[in-house]
Amino acid sequence: MPRAWRLTGSGDVDVLALEEFEVPALGPLDVQVGVHAAGLNRADILQRRGIYPAPAGAPADIPGLEYAGRVEAVGARVTHRKPGDRVMGLVGGGAYAEQLVVNERETIAIPAGLSDTDAAATTEAFLTAYRALFIEGGLNAGDWCLIRAATSGIGIAAMQLSRYFGCRSIGTGRNRERLEAVAGYGLDALAVDGEDTLSGLVAEHAGDGVAVVLDLIGGSGAVKENLASLRPEGVQVLVGLMAGPKDQINLAPVLFRRLTLRAMTMRSLPLERRIELAQLFERRLSAAFSNGALRPVVDTTLPFEQAREAQQLMESGRHTGKIVLRMDGPGTH
Amino acid sequence: MPRAWRLTGSGDVDVLALEEFEVPALGPLDVQVGVHAAGLNRADILQRRGIYPAPAGAPADIPGLEYAGRVEAVGARVTHRKPGDRVMGLVGGGAYAEQLVVNERETIAIPAGLSDTDAAATTEAFLTAYRALFIEGGLNAGDWCLIRAATSGIGIAAMQLSRYFGCRSIGTGRNRERLEAVAGYGLDALAVDGEDTLSGLVAEHAGDGVAVVLDLIGGSGAVKENLASLRPEGVQVLVGLMAGPKDQINLAPVLFRRLTLRAMTMRSLPLERRIELAQLFERRLSAAFSNGALRPVVDTTLPFEQAREAQQLMESGRHTGKIVLRMDGPGTH
Repeated sequence: MPRAWRLTGSGDVDVLALEEFEVPALGPLDVQVGVHAAGLNRADILQRRGIYPAPAGAPADIPGLEYAGRVEAVGARVTHRKPGDRVMGLVGGGAYAEQLVVNERETIAIPAGLSDTDAAATTEAFLTAYRALFIEGGLNAGDWCLIRAATSGIGIAAMQLSRYFGCRSIGTGRNRERLEAVAGYGLDALAVDGEDTLSGLVAEHAGDGVAVVLDLIGGSGAVKENLASLRPEGVQVLVGLMAGPKDQINLAPVLFRRLTLRAMTMRSLPLERRIELAQLFERRLSAAFSNGALRPVVDTTLPFEQAREAQQLMESGRHTGKIVLRMDGPGTH
Repeated sequence: MPRAWRLTGSGDVDVLALEEFEVPALGPLDVQVGVHAAGLNRADILQRRGIYPAPAGAPADIPGLEYAGRVEAVGARVTHRKPGDRVMGLVGGGAYAEQLVVNERETIAIPAGLSDTDAAATTEAFLTAYRALFIEGGLNAGDWCLIRAATSGIGIAAMQLSRYFGCRSIGTGRNRERLEAVAGYGLDALAVDGEDTLSGLVAEHAGDGVAVVLDLIGGSGAVKENLASLRPEGVQVLVGLMAGPKDQINLAPVLFRRLTLRAMTMRSLPLERRIELAQLFERRLSAAFSNGALRPVVDTTLPFEQAREAQQLMESGRHTGKIVLRMDGPGTH
C-alpha cells in the first residue's frame, strides 16, 4: 500500500504521521498518478495548525497542493492521458502521498526538459503569480508591478513572468542579501522593508505608480504602502491569507484614485477552474519552461520521509524559493 | 452672449453667479450645443463647496455634468452630427450654461420620444449605474445585486437596468415611504437602513449573497454590511465620493470570500472613455428608452435661473430621482 502524511490533529509538526493509506477508487475520467515529488506551500502550514481546513472535495487530512509524477492507471473514459505520461498539477489537498487520483483534464503535461523536482516546484508558484498579475490584476506589457515578499516561490515566479511578458517589477523583502540574490530572475528595482523608501522608488521608476501590486503579506502597514504605490485605476491583489486579516485599511486612496482591491486563493478552486488554469499553463507557459526562459527556483529538496523537517524549514523563513519533497520510488526522474 | 452659472468662490449657493460668458472656440471635431436642459448631480454640490475641483480639461468654474439640447454649429471636420440634431451627453463640467462645446463623438443621439428634460436626467444616472453593475461589477442575467441609496437618480436607474437585463435587486434607503414609492421601477426586495435586517433579506432572497453591491454612500458601517452581503468572489463598487472617505474597513471578509472592492467616478473620465460610453448607450440602451422599458425619474424641473434653488433642493435630500434645470430658449422640446 502507498503511504501518505496524515494530519492526526492540529499543532506542531508531530501531528503529521506517515501512514499507509488506501488510494481512492478511480472515477471514469480520473487518472491515478504515482507522485514523484510534491511542492510545499504556506497553506500546508496553516492547515496543519488547524486554522485553514481543507476545501470541500479535497482529502481532509492529507496536505499538499501540487505534485509531479507519472500516470499509472486511467479510468474507463479517459482519452487525454495514458499510463507513463509525465504530469504535474494543482490539487486542493492530498499531494503529500505516493499516489494521487485526479481528473485527467486538471493534469498538466510536464514541459520537456523539466525534472520532477522542478515540476513539483512550478505549478502553484507560477499559476498563482500568473493569475494574480495578469488575470486578476490585468497587467499588460510595459506596465510596472510591485511584488511584496519577492524572495518567496511566488515572488520569484512573479518577477520572471513580469519580465517574460514585457513588464517591469519592483520587489520588496525583509532581507537585502536574499533580495539581491533573486533580483537577477527579473526585478528591475528592489526595496528592503523598513530600510528603503518604497514611495521614492515607485516615483523614480514607475511615474504615477504601478499597475498591479501582488501582495503575499497583507497587514495594514503594507496595504497602506501598496495602495499609495498604485497608479490611478491600479489593482492590489492579495494572495492567500494575510498575517493579520483583522487589519483595518483606509478607503480614501481607493476612492480618490479609483483603485481595486481584490483577494484570491488557489486552494479552493473548483475542478473546472483548475482545468482552465491547466490549459492556460500548457498554452501560454509550457514552451518557456522547455526553453529555459522560465524556471522554478528550488531552495531545498528533502526525501518524502522528512516532511516534518521540510515544514520546519518553511516555518523558519530562511529559504529562498521552493521546498520540495521527493518520493524516491523506482522510475523517479 | 449666452449665460452660464459660474463659481465665484466656494461655499453656499450664493457663490453661484449667473453671468454672460464667451463660448469656447469650436475645434475641427467639435460641435456647439444649445443646451435645453441640464441634470444636477451630487458632484456639483461638492464642487461648489470647494472639495471636488473640476477635472483637467473641463471648465474650472462652470458646474454641470450632463446636458440635453440641439446641435447649433459644427467644426470643419465633423462628419457625425449636423445642426439641428438632438443630442445629450456627459461632460467633466460646463453644463450649467446655455451653450456648450463638445467633441461630436461624445454626444449621444437623444432616443426618439424622450423629451429634453428626460434626456438631461438620463445620461449620468444610467451610464453610472450601467458601468457600476455590468462593467465594473460584472453582473450577469440571473444574478442579484444590492443597491444602496436606491431612491437616488442612480439608484432608480440601477434597479431598472437590473430588471431590464434579467437580474434581481435589493434596494436600501433611509425612508420607507420613498423606497416603496420607487420599488416598482425594478426592486425585488427592499430594506430600510437601521430598521430592517439586511443580512436576513439577503439570505432569504440571494442565497449565498449578491453578486454586486452598488454603493453611493460608503461609510464603514455600510461597507461592512455590503461586504457581508456579497457572495464569494462578489464585487463592491463604490461610486463617487463617500460621506466619510477616512473610514476604516476590515479586510477579513475580502480575503476569506475572495471579494473585490473597487471605486469608480464618471466626472474624471477622459474623452475617449466618454466616447466609449456614448457608443455603449446608443448600442445597448437607446431602444429601451424609445420603447419605454427604461425611463428617467425626474423629481423636479426648475428654470435655468433657479440653479441655486435646485442645488438647495438636492442638498435637502427630500427629492426622489433627478433634478433638472431648463433653459427655456426658443425651440425647446
